[in-house]
Amino acid sequence: MIIDCHCHYTTEPHQHHAFRQAQVRYAQDRTGTAPLYPGIGDDEIRASIEDNQLRLLQQRGIDMTVFSPRAAGMGHHVGDESISLAWTRASNDLIARIVALFPQHFFGVCQLPQSPGVPIAHSIHELERCVKELGFVGCNLNPDPSGGHWTAPPLTDRAWYPFFEKMIELDVPAMIHVSGSCNACFHTTGAHYINADTTAFMQLLQGDLFSDFPELRLIIPHGGGAVPYHWGRYRGLADMLNKPPLTSHVMQNVFFDTCVYHQPGIDLLFKVIDLDNILFGSEMIGAVRGLDPETGHHFDDTRRYIDALALSPQDSQRVFEGNARRVYPRLDAQLKARGL
Amino acid sequence: MIIDCHCHYTTEPHQHHAFRQAQVRYAQDRTGTAPLYPGIGDDEIRASIEDNQLRLLQQRGIDMTVFSPRAAGMGHHVGDESISLAWTRASNDLIARIVALFPQHFFGVCQLPQSPGVPIAHSIHELERCVKELGFVGCNLNPDPSGGHWTAPPLTDRAWYPFFEKMIELDVPAMIHVSGSCNACFHTTGAHYINADTTAFMQLLQGDLFSDFPELRLIIPHGGGAVPYHWGRYRGLADMLNKPPLTSHVMQNVFFDTCVYHQPGIDLLFKVIDLDNILFGSEMIGAVRGLDPETGHHFDDTRRYIDALALSPQDSQRVFEGNARRVYPRLDAQLKARGL
Repeated sequence: MIIDCHCHYTTEPHQHHAFRQAQVRYAQDRTGTAPLYPGIGDDEIRASIEDNQLRLLQQRGIDMTVFSPRAAGMGHHVGDESISLAWTRASNDLIARIVALFPQHFFGVCQLPQSPGVPIAHSIHELERCVKELGFVGCNLNPDPSGGHWTAPPLTDRAWYPFFEKMIELDVPAMIHVSGSCNACFHTTGAHYINADTTAFMQLLQGDLFSDFPELRLIIPHGGGAVPYHWGRYRGLADMLNKPPLTSHVMQNVFFDTCVYHQPGIDLLFKVIDLDNILFGSEMIGAVRGLDPETGHHFDDTRRYIDALALSPQDSQRVFEGNARRVYPRLDAQLKARGL
Repeated sequence: MIIDCHCHYTTEPHQHHAFRQAQVRYAQDRTGTAPLYPGIGDDEIRASIEDNQLRLLQQRGIDMTVFSPRAAGMGHHVGDESISLAWTRASNDLIARIVALFPQHFFGVCQLPQSPGVPIAHSIHELERCVKELGFVGCNLNPDPSGGHWTAPPLTDRAWYPFFEKMIELDVPAMIHVSGSCNACFHTTGAHYINADTTAFMQLLQGDLFSDFPELRLIIPHGGGAVPYHWGRYRGLADMLNKPPLTSHVMQNVFFDTCVYHQPGIDLLFKVIDLDNILFGSEMIGAVRGLDPETGHHFDDTRRYIDALALSPQDSQRVFEGNARRVYPRLDAQLKARGL
C-alpha cells in the first residue's frame, strides 16, 4: 500500500474561488453582508478530483492520500478571525465531501482558523470538529499566520501549548505548513515554504518542546526545507547550544516528507535522515506541475525517485505506508477497520 | 593555491566589542556624546588572528582568505544610519589593519553602512573607500537590513540598482549575507542565514536582474541555502514562471560557496551545481565551531569534504582558486602583481 501524506486540493471548483473573492472584498470594505457559501454539486467536485489528483494517483500507483485544502489559499493574514473561520470551515467541509466521495483514496487533514495575534486556542474547536465529526486524521498548523512577516512567537513558546495538548488528546499530528506570502521578499512556494520548514526545525532545535510533549508528532514538509542538506550544521548547532544529539532531541517527534523534486535531493534525504522519519509525499498537484526535461517525468512524481533507491521491501513499506500509519494513528485505525 | 572566499573576523579584541556596546547604548538613549573608537595595538590584533584564523588556515592547508567583519555583528537594524556608518567604518578599518599585518593571507571584503529604509546609494561611498583606499576586493550586501523583518524590497527592485552599477564600475562582487536576527522566530545562523540564501536565489529567479546587469556577480553563501537540495523545485519553478533555464537565467552571475558541513551535503552540491559556480569557503571561524563526533574533524573544515570528492587537478584548481580569481578580479590582480 502506498500513502501520500502531502496532497492539497488545488483544483477547486470556480464557485469556491468566487466565494473567497467575495469574502476578501467583504473583509476589506465591510459593506453589505458576509457572502454565503455557494452550492457546488457532487458531480463537479467528483470531476475536479477524477480528472486531476485521482488520475495522477492512479497513474503513479499511489493508493491513497492524506488530503488538505490548498496551503497557499489558507490566507490566515486576510481579514480577521471571523473571516478566517468562515473560510476555514468552508475549505474543510469541501475536503470532507471529497473524502465522502472517494473514501478508498482520500483521508482528510484540516486547515485551521488561525489569524495574526489571535490565540491558537481559538483553533481548537475547528480541529475537534474536523477530527470528531468529519473523521479527519491530522491538521496543517501555520507557524506564521501573518503570511511572511513572522509576528507569531516560535513554536516552542507556551502560547502554542493549548493546541499541542489538544493534538495529543485527539492523537493527531500536525504538518507545519505556512500559507501564501504577502511579503514581496518571499515567493510563496520558492522561498516562504522552504524557509518556514527550515525555521520550524531550528525553533524545535533551540527549544525543548518534546520534553514537555513527548507524544507530539510534527511533520515538516518539503523534505525538511534546507535541513537535510545542512544536517552537519544542525548537528553542530545542537552541540553548540548544549542540546542532546538531534536523534533524541528532535527526531523522535519530527518527520520529513519526500517533496524534493530531483533524484540527488532524495538521495541525500535518505542518506542523512533515518528511514523512520521519512514519510512519502508529493505535494501533488502543487508548487511544481511541469515535466522535468531531464527525465521526461513530472518533477513532483516523487515515487520514481524513491523507487530508484531500490530499498528493501521492508524499508519501502516503512516509507510508503508504515511510517504514515504510525504518525497518523487515526488513519491507521480507519484502515484497520476496513481490514487493511 | 587554495583561497577561502568566506571567513569573518569573529575573534575581535574586547575593545572592539566594548565600543559597540557603548554605541548601542548611545543609540538607545542619546545621552552624552557618541563613543570614540578605542586604540587597539597591532600586537593584540596580530595575536587574535595568529591564534585563530591563521592557525586554522595553516592547519588545513589554506593559503589565503577573503576576510570580512563578523556578519552577525553588522547589526544594520541597530540605531540609525549614522550609527551604522560609524560602526561599519570601524569594522572595515579593523579588517584593513589585518590585511596590512598579514598581506600574504588576508584580503579584505567590507560590510556596508546599510540601515532600514535608507537608500542603498548611501552605502556607495563606503564601498568606494574600501575598494579604492583600503584595497578591498568585494563587499557583503545585506538583503534584509531590518534583521529578520524583511522590510526591504527584493534584490531585483530598481531601488538596489545604483549600488549594482557601482559594483560593476569597481569590478567587485557582493556576497549576499544577512546579519543577526532580531526576530525571535529566526535563529541567526540556523534559520536566518539559510533562509536569506534561499530567499535571495528565488528573488533572482523571479526577476530578470542579470538582463539589466550581465556583469554583476553575486555569491550566495552557505552552499546556496536550500537551493541545491531543492534544485528540481527551482528548475521547475523557472519553467512555471516562464523563465529561461537556470543555467542561463541565473547561473551566469550567481555563485555558491562550500559552507556545507557534512560530506553528503557537499556531494549533493557538486552533483547538481556546475563546478564553475562553486567557490571554496568555510565560514571559519563562524556558525559551527565544534568537532563532528562522526568524523573527529571540525564541522567547518570543508576542505576535507572537497578533497574526498577526488576531483581532477584541473577541477580542484577551479574550486579552490580559479573561480575565486574570476569572481574577485581585484583579488586576481593583486595576486598577479605579486607574480602569483
